[in-house]
Amino acid sequence: MATTALVVLDLGGTFAFALNGALTALRATRLDIVGVVTLGMITALGGGTIRDLFLDSLPPATFLDWRYLAVAAGGGLIAFASGHHLERINGTINVLDAAGLSLFAVTGALKATGLGFGPAQAVIVGAITAVGGGTIRDVLIRRVPSVLSSGLYAVPALVGATAVVVAELLGARGSVATVGAAVLCFVIRMVGVHFDVNAPVPPGSPPPEDG
Amino acid sequence: MATTALVVLDLGGTFAFALNGALTALRATRLDIVGVVTLGMITALGGGTIRDLFLDSLPPATFLDWRYLAVAAGGGLIAFASGHHLERINGTINVLDAAGLSLFAVTGALKATGLGFGPAQAVIVGAITAVGGGTIRDVLIRRVPSVLSSGLYAVPALVGATAVVVAELLGARGSVATVGAAVLCFVIRMVGVHFDVNAPVPPGSPPPEDG
Amino acid sequence: MATTALVVLDLGGTFAFALNGALTALRATRLDIVGVVTLGMITALGGGTIRDLFLDSLPPATFLDWRYLAVAAGGGLIAFASGHHLERINGTINVLDAAGLSLFAVTGALKATGLGFGPAQAVIVGAITAVGGGTIRDVLIRRVPSVLSSGLYAVPALVGATAVVVAELLGARGSVATVGAAVLCFVIRMVGVHFDVNAPVPPGSPPPEDG
Repeated sequence: MATTALVVLDLGGTFAFALNGALTALRATRLDIVGVVTLGMITALGGGTIRDLFLDSLPPATFLDWRYLAVAAGGGLIAFASGHHLERINGTINVLDAAGLSLFAVTGALKATGLGFGPAQAVIVGAITAVGGGTIRDVLIRRVPSVLSSGLYAVPALVGATAVVVAELLGARGSVATVGAAVLCFVIRMVGVHFDVNAPVPPGSPPPEDG
Repeated sequence: MATTALVVLDLGGTFAFALNGALTALRATRLDIVGVVTLGMITALGGGTIRDLFLDSLPPATFLDWRYLAVAAGGGLIAFASGHHLERINGTINVLDAAGLSLFAVTGALKATGLGFGPAQAVIVGAITAVGGGTIRDVLIRRVPSVLSSGLYAVPALVGATAVVVAELLGARGSVATVGAAVLCFVIRMVGVHFDVNAPVPPGSPPPEDG
Repeated sequence: MATTALVVLDLGGTFAFALNGALTALRATRLDIVGVVTLGMITALGGGTIRDLFLDSLPPATFLDWRYLAVAAGGGLIAFASGHHLERINGTINVLDAAGLSLFAVTGALKATGLGFGPAQAVIVGAITAVGGGTIRDVLIRRVPSVLSSGLYAVPALVGATAVVVAELLGARGSVATVGAAVLCFVIRMVGVHFDVNAPVPPGSPPPEDG
């Protein structure tokens, strides 16, 4: 897949997470414009920064490349300006989160294979990239992160990253395979959100202290 | 600006944040001497560590250079020993936080330009250095970080870093420009604290779930 | 000490922390299998990842070496499957935490000396490796980290790391010195847990807002 197409998908994920993080800030805590845009940018750029740390691709692209910074800041500002018009803000937040998750799972994995890492490392880095920004977001506003509490959050990221890596191993490096893997991840995540699907919980476990 | 002067300012910021972090620990939670000094050191060294990660200047100077470790540990111990004598501890905490914020904004930005990074990256790294340690501090003691909740926290850091970068672009690399930029940041921050200034909040936004 | 023996001890610490993190997840919050295994893996691999960042040994060994990933995932799955059978789960969690702390304190310090870092840096990195994973674990499930709240948590890690570094400086690089340093750390930690020992708290300090 061409590098340009990969950057476009990566910027798409950045934009989705910037909107998501800023809308989350509007909902969760009494934040002013700086706080809202800051949380949007951290959510948008956090996953890619952790990815580049794991891949030893420092300084991080999220910091060196002005396009990531501009898209993240723009997404945060747009969300701040329009957030209170959104009637079904929770639904929007979930869709944006799933979109960012899907795009980062495949672009993270493809960046790893492009740098010469093996398939297992590529799948892991794809998943870390996908869940990283949202995890930092949740920690900063004092929520248990989705990656721990939500049944189908890490799983679709792993599935999407695996799909794109397998497609590449089979010689299918084109946009179709990449977008298909992202759509697969997105659909699994949205099904999980819609039906509130969870992975198995331990039977007979002691009652949790904190729900 | 001479490297020695820069190190002195950087150590000054480290000391201010070590005192601030340790005093915050005394106020916020029931911590013993190890916890108080540890939070002081993490607050003091966190921003510089993140800075060096973004600048690919690893291992971090905060870890390699014994002076940073000694100043951070000393600040934590001094705060532990004297903290309960401070009548107006909250005021002291705010002044120390503003001092560390200001010094790290300018030294972080100047380290970036010294390593050859462009003006935009230098401003961003200055701001990240300034807010980084305090953000980790707040996460560890379970507070919403100042960078999200306090109107004028990221803004003065960005202003101070921009001022010193612009001064350098104009050929004014001396101590006067550097200290002036730090003072500018400090004054803006303290005005914000004193008058409880916030940036605009979104009109018509839904009521926050968590104040 | 042979590299193989060091890897074995490091994998032992990884396994102990994977069990600990997963059992903590079972106790603390209502997590499904993915959340439990994820928290186990983050607890197991977090300290070593931070260690390799500080030592500029990137990409981290915890990510490149499949053995760490396999042991961490296996430990999380075993804890998930067996956790509800453990009658005295809190005691088990504490013992596993002390075991991981002890093993990572010595292996972290020895990795630093093996890479040519000085004694002070080796002691610090040993302690950071030991407390890192547990600190991330506590932040993710919204607890004040043990390294701040528990009197004897950072101290035994520093003692264990110091012991193994001093032994190496004296020419005792064998397994006996390494295991002895780990046992020393483990015993101090368990004594602290058993007798609820705390380091001195500041006399006359204002009453804490949050216990």
